[in-house]
Amino acid sequence: MPIAPTQDSSRDARAFREEIRAGRHDGTTAGHARGNVQANLVIVPHDAAFDFLLFCQRNPKPCPLLEVTDPGSPEPRMLAPGADLSRDLPRYRVFRDGEMVEERTDVSDLWRDDFVGFLLGCSFTFDWRLIGAGLEVRNFVQGTNVSMYRTNIPCRPAGVFEGPLVVSMRPFLPQDAIRAALISAELPQVHGAPIHLGDPAAIGIEDLSAPDYGDPTPIHEGEQPVFWACGVTPQEALLRAKLPIAITHAPGHMFVTDLREDELPAFTERIT
Amino acid sequence: MPIAPTQDSSRDARAFREEIRAGRHDGTTAGHARGNVQANLVIVPHDAAFDFLLFCQRNPKPCPLLEVTDPGSPEPRMLAPGADLSRDLPRYRVFRDGEMVEERTDVSDLWRDDFVGFLLGCSFTFDWRLIGAGLEVRNFVQGTNVSMYRTNIPCRPAGVFEGPLVVSMRPFLPQDAIRAALISAELPQVHGAPIHLGDPAAIGIEDLSAPDYGDPTPIHEGEQPVFWACGVTPQEALLRAKLPIAITHAPGHMFVTDLREDELPAFTERIT
Repeated sequence: MPIAPTQDSSRDARAFREEIRAGRHDGTTAGHARGNVQANLVIVPHDAAFDFLLFCQRNPKPCPLLEVTDPGSPEPRMLAPGADLSRDLPRYRVFRDGEMVEERTDVSDLWRDDFVGFLLGCSFTFDWRLIGAGLEVRNFVQGTNVSMYRTNIPCRPAGVFEGPLVVSMRPFLPQDAIRAALISAELPQVHGAPIHLGDPAAIGIEDLSAPDYGDPTPIHEGEQPVFWACGVTPQEALLRAKLPIAITHAPGHMFVTDLREDELPAFTERIT
Repeated sequence: MPIAPTQDSSRDARAFREEIRAGRHDGTTAGHARGNVQANLVIVPHDAAFDFLLFCQRNPKPCPLLEVTDPGSPEPRMLAPGADLSRDLPRYRVFRDGEMVEERTDVSDLWRDDFVGFLLGCSFTFDWRLIGAGLEVRNFVQGTNVSMYRTNIPCRPAGVFEGPLVVSMRPFLPQDAIRAALISAELPQVHGAPIHLGDPAAIGIEDLSAPDYGDPTPIHEGEQPVFWACGVTPQEALLRAKLPIAITHAPGHMFVTDLREDELPAFTERIT
């Protein structure tokens, strides 16, 4: 159910989250919620929260922090007052002792009073700007999730967290790749400019047709694969940190915020 | 000892920090270290570090985080490898149980293996850009510290941390105020654009001639006071948080990093 932007985009976002909470949308949010900021979710217990916050601070390209909830509260008060991070995403992944043990559509029964929720900007947000500029976002046309890959680029470690950078990929003709770079660079809060283009092997990606996360995306004659830092990066770090429990969104199944993408600069410039 | 910029500004910064460590410079760093990024320092024990990191994340204008050290390490590896945050600032303030109990030039004997150091960008960094654009930074001309004031604008609380926004003030003629706003906006990592200008009473400042921190700055006929968010803000929060111990720089007595101010955009855009 793609939502059309209106004057009141927070109403649209709320309506979409209600569909999700009611179980009527459990697929990717790519191509949905036009105009609204989408976010990656990471939930860790309080005793790992400093390390994770530090991991984000040290790796701002894959982990552009938008909001961190108060310990115990699943409500992102700034980005979506009244929302519930334990129920309002279409699909979650549950990590236990360094293994992804379960995918489910609701984690409210797992919620604990020491959980801290982290929302990181998602590139699905600038996809709509690319579309608006006349670029073809291939996975939108296909109705599929974006392709994501583990790279050989290490993140800066922080406490128990370390691991490789994960990237999302969109193919473009060279001129469009340049335009996509310029347009995405305007939104650093949702990963900003790409980190690489052209040669997948140079960043450790062996087979573009077999993404580590999401769906395959065909690349047409003359197109370049363009790679953006991706908010799935923390999931690789969670596999290595082996926390007793952690929860994330399922790749491509994001939290839709009330914030409009054109409000991002003002959000970042807020006084306090 | 103002330092002139050379090709190797990290050498200049190191030399200046050595002067400081040797006790030959214990005054303000305003007007020094041209071309190098200056930073506010906050040191808290590990058990308060998540709350403080969250306070910074929620209040990015006063607390633009540049680097956080690993618990126990006084070395800022990214901004000044080899430096020692417990000795390389000209002047520190020691807080115990919510009181500022001591000002000193070295805190290495107080260092603990659970201390975490936070470096926040300082507006002294863009002062040099203002000078370069032909603007008069009054406190440079005077050779004094910048004027800083407590406001009536509350920060967003985070755990034990809350308190009012502190601002620095520079007076400019209206046209220059506009130019100063545009120039500083280019460096969000060191507080970016001003948060207010013109009417001090509107943000709770009663007497411009009696700053809460730093030295008074005369305002000439026709000039507007222009206010920037200031990295002394955490010191107000520390007074309220009443931690058993915390350490900061003394207002205006900053940590001089190896990073050049023109490297700030690349620093922010670093992949990991």
